Amino acid sequence: MTITITAFERSPDRGRGLARDMRVRWALEEVGQPYEVRLVSFKEMKEPAHLALQPFGQIPTYEEGDLALFESGAIVFHIGERHAGLLPVDANARARALTWMFAALNTVETPIFDRALVMILDRDKPWYDQRLSALEDSIRKRLIDLSRRLGDADWLDGAFSAGDLLMVSVLLRLKGSGILEEYPNLSAYVARGEARPAYKRAFAAQLAVFTAASAG
Amino acid sequence: MTITITAFERSPDRGRGLARDMRVRWALEEVGQPYEVRLVSFKEMKEPAHLALQPFGQIPTYEEGDLALFESGAIVFHIGERHAGLLPVDANARARALTWMFAALNTVETPIFDRALVMILDRDKPWYDQRLSALEDSIRKRLIDLSRRLGDADWLDGAFSAGDLLMVSVLLRLKGSGILEEYPNLSAYVARGEARPAYKRAFAAQLAVFTAASAG
Repeated sequence: MTITITAFERSPDRGRGLARDMRVRWALEEVGQPYEVRLVSFKEMKEPAHLALQPFGQIPTYEEGDLALFESGAIVFHIGERHAGLLPVDANARARALTWMFAALNTVETPIFDRALVMILDRDKPWYDQRLSALEDSIRKRLIDLSRRLGDADWLDGAFSAGDLLMVSVLLRLKGSGILEEYPNLSAYVARGEARPAYKRAFAAQLAVFTAASAG
Repeated sequence: MTITITAFERSPDRGRGLARDMRVRWALEEVGQPYEVRLVSFKEMKEPAHLALQPFGQIPTYEEGDLALFESGAIVFHIGERHAGLLPVDANARARALTWMFAALNTVETPIFDRALVMILDRDKPWYDQRLSALEDSIRKRLIDLSRRLGDADWLDGAFSAGDLLMVSVLLRLKGSGILEEYPNLSAYVARGEARPAYKRAFAAQLAVFTAASAG
């Protein structure tokens, strides 16, 4: 059955791989499943056809026959359940992988994404400096805990899993901020993620979309 | 196998049912599983024994024999996989339920939780009103989309599921703010959640902890 995902027609990150379709592309590459991409404009994302698929008017979505999903976390878990390569077979280990998926998106991503938003939207606001610094403190709190837990392991819980895929995706947004680099084991963890062939294929595919849109 | 969860020794919400152990208690009540609660102080949450279970020093955790989990979303999904009553049997419907679980925690909760934090931490800041109003706009954007999708249905996707359990839990934090009440179908949705016998049992159990701590 053909898998179709949606992505930004022109990603606001200029092809840096930070849009949330990247996670789904990466997951599909890890399990070796081909997929098609339907590009949507910002205008189309808020129109009824897209809202029927994604009620909050965002990307990505995932369609496969009768099934339509949204939320990158749920899509990555679904891909991992259908195909080998992203989730452990053992039920307890699989439950722990889902724990790391929620930790990535609900506990670690929150201050990281807020920081990115504040840097775009609030530069002229009276609270900018204070808010940015508070967010960076919150990020450091999370990274200290994560760094302690990871220690010198390659991945968060045994072999690479969908939990690592999402955690690396979330941490990537900090690359070059100086904050990630304060934690050498996390920096190396992110680099291990980026070095995976599946990551590279997914990154090249999303960059090609942005390059084509910019040339057009 | 005995299930043990952790909860605040003295919940900062004063027993209003907003701490994240409430979601796990509610899920266990929905599936009819008994559980034990280990109360932890703020100090204990940051000590090695608890950090081994929950690397970010938060509650709740979930222990069942050899299995240790954290993140309320992952715990609720695990409970739903092990016991009937929280997740549909059909694989596609189950994947959609997980989509709503991630939507609740990653898309809807974020601005709602930020608003609560700002109201506690930033009241004396010169930009308090402006920031609160920006957050309330973000919340309204999500609620407009959610209200449109829910329409006049009882639950988000067919029968009550873990997706509804988490979405109601997240929206409950807005009760009495006036914001939730702008969307009568969402207000009624939350009331349907609160009316469930399993919710009431879970609420009473967490309130009893706070009442006992306050009397002590």
